[in-house]
Amino acid sequence: MKLSIERGTLLKAVSQAQSVVERRNTIPILANVLIEAEGDTVQFRATDLDIEVVDKAPAKVERAGATTVSAVTLHEIIRKLPDGALVTLTDDGASGRMSVEAGRSNFSLATLPREDFPVMASSEYTCNFTADAPVLRRLFDKSKFAISTEETRYYLNGVYMHVADGDGGQVLRCVATDGHRLARIDADLPEGAADMPGVIVPRKTVGELRKLLDDDEAKIAVSVSETKVRFATPDITLTSKVIDGTFPDYTRVIPTGNTRRLEVDASEFAQAVDRVATVSSERSRAVKLALDEDRLVLSVNAPDSGNAEEELAVAYGDDHLEIGFNAKYLLEIASQVDRENAVFLFNSSGDPTLMREGNDTSAVYVVMPMRV
Amino acid sequence: MKLSIERGTLLKAVSQAQSVVERRNTIPILANVLIEAEGDTVQFRATDLDIEVVDKAPAKVERAGATTVSAVTLHEIIRKLPDGALVTLTDDGASGRMSVEAGRSNFSLATLPREDFPVMASSEYTCNFTADAPVLRRLFDKSKFAISTEETRYYLNGVYMHVADGDGGQVLRCVATDGHRLARIDADLPEGAADMPGVIVPRKTVGELRKLLDDDEAKIAVSVSETKVRFATPDITLTSKVIDGTFPDYTRVIPTGNTRRLEVDASEFAQAVDRVATVSSERSRAVKLALDEDRLVLSVNAPDSGNAEEELAVAYGDDHLEIGFNAKYLLEIASQVDRENAVFLFNSSGDPTLMREGNDTSAVYVVMPMRV
Repeated sequence: MKLSIERGTLLKAVSQAQSVVERRNTIPILANVLIEAEGDTVQFRATDLDIEVVDKAPAKVERAGATTVSAVTLHEIIRKLPDGALVTLTDDGASGRMSVEAGRSNFSLATLPREDFPVMASSEYTCNFTADAPVLRRLFDKSKFAISTEETRYYLNGVYMHVADGDGGQVLRCVATDGHRLARIDADLPEGAADMPGVIVPRKTVGELRKLLDDDEAKIAVSVSETKVRFATPDITLTSKVIDGTFPDYTRVIPTGNTRRLEVDASEFAQAVDRVATVSSERSRAVKLALDEDRLVLSVNAPDSGNAEEELAVAYGDDHLEIGFNAKYLLEIASQVDRENAVFLFNSSGDPTLMREGNDTSAVYVVMPMRV
Repeated sequence: MKLSIERGTLLKAVSQAQSVVERRNTIPILANVLIEAEGDTVQFRATDLDIEVVDKAPAKVERAGATTVSAVTLHEIIRKLPDGALVTLTDDGASGRMSVEAGRSNFSLATLPREDFPVMASSEYTCNFTADAPVLRRLFDKSKFAISTEETRYYLNGVYMHVADGDGGQVLRCVATDGHRLARIDADLPEGAADMPGVIVPRKTVGELRKLLDDDEAKIAVSVSETKVRFATPDITLTSKVIDGTFPDYTRVIPTGNTRRLEVDASEFAQAVDRVATVSSERSRAVKLALDEDRLVLSVNAPDSGNAEEELAVAYGDDHLEIGFNAKYLLEIASQVDRENAVFLFNSSGDPTLMREGNDTSAVYVVMPMRV
């Protein structure tokens, strides 16, 4: 193998690939990136056995071939090379070394045979559709904070992407929950997605996917089977196993009969919650919301360190209500609101509370109360 | 105690004080800041028993008094209050609480009696002088990287500030070393400093001091005794115990007979060292310098992961020389050079090497070689 490539192009391609590689590996080949050069393209492939990223870049290929080298070391070297440098990668296949040359710098990296690299088996995808990057970005960005980290409930360790019946017909829906809070985000159903099987996209895949979605103009080709999901741009293909489990019936958790309506400026609310929570150093800090007509008093009481109280002018027209929440959950939910006021719908102090942006039901959050 | 103060002024005063407070304290009062209000000034005092910071700010004092509250909690609250807010601190001395009020926010923080707060005993300073902030900044910034972290050699855990004989008469000198490398930085002797006893300023004090030195115009009042050192601006007073030990005779370590002279662009050199070191993941990575006429070849050989080589055009006119150094030490030293080329003076591959900026001898670095 022998190829030349511009440093910036190379860095971009290797960056995305190396981020999938786990830092601590018991299997040496998993620390490596598979480099394959053919025609006028070089391809970088990395995997942790659950996720595989393939990143393509144009290159001047003098001699086709393939090899594997440490992803982290290669990435570090490329990163430290001067901008604009022309980088030559050469592997003679016999010495067990790949050379990286740029200007007066010369590196020789240990290789492992390409045959040992575990390429993910290709899958029969039962559903293929295209979605705009901003649509997928919104679906995952607004739901991922609620992903559970509890390993025992592994089926909650991801975002459940599926087709559901929304208010105005079928929607593409992402749901995540950890049992304490839940996010349900809807988008218009893309053409061809109606038969998509529901899949639980793992947390790490959601994180890697995010890097494909930065470009507002990008169209993402999505392929789904019962066991795998694939997201692809022309340059990057991200393939991931999905979580082999059944996502619980979340619809029963979403309250429908909550009538006590509070409307509040989301950023004022978040700042006030953040401030009153300061007096408590506990991890699960409870913030009490006391509601009276057009008046919200937030308070935290931490016997050891002190207490805090803040009043906000709000829109509320129902009876007096006192209800407590985990401060962190309230903050995370309030920070999802980007355009309008936050609308909370309460039932009683013991029942789950619903939050949404204004009257928009395409992003709905549920949070369980805490006893205060 | 009752006082009002603008949020920005308060934040600045509390920030400096709270940074001295250790995050993990077995003695509860040490987590607190002592607030003393009198006249038209409020004063914040924090200590870890070795360092004490006193920070003054103008305030509208309605009722003089003093109390102590958690430094971290107070700082967090002030930080989260909206910019421009007027903050009122009130303590009635009986309830064991201090209230913090700003707009519609109301906090009540647990206090501890002011009498329990350990105020550092004042000292007889044998030497007082004034130095410009940029002068002190240079002395400590350029030397602190060489401070040892080995607790067994506690007398190396700081910067040795003392009066020494420089090339052109007496100088104010800061020296730090960990046995592997050494930094010796000189400045003109300030008036009144000639009789200063040499003191070892602890690492943490050097870090806290740095915050006083950002303002180029500031004059710093320095007071030194055998056991303490004090740095003061009109607003902030930083008092610290000095390390009770004898700094070793560093002059014997600084080579005087090194004649093989290498001159190299410091930033090019640092970048090349950084690049070639990438192939090795060991903590103490050895970089080999091979010198021939006007030519330097840097190389790293890591049998497991690969090797790297880079050539630099330099000014060197002596015999062939091969010498190895710890990559991290070379990088740290090269990054001290800010104006001119780095000049290295070598003897043999087993002897300490000297580095300075151009022909400037007011900042000199020594680094021990490694066998490669």
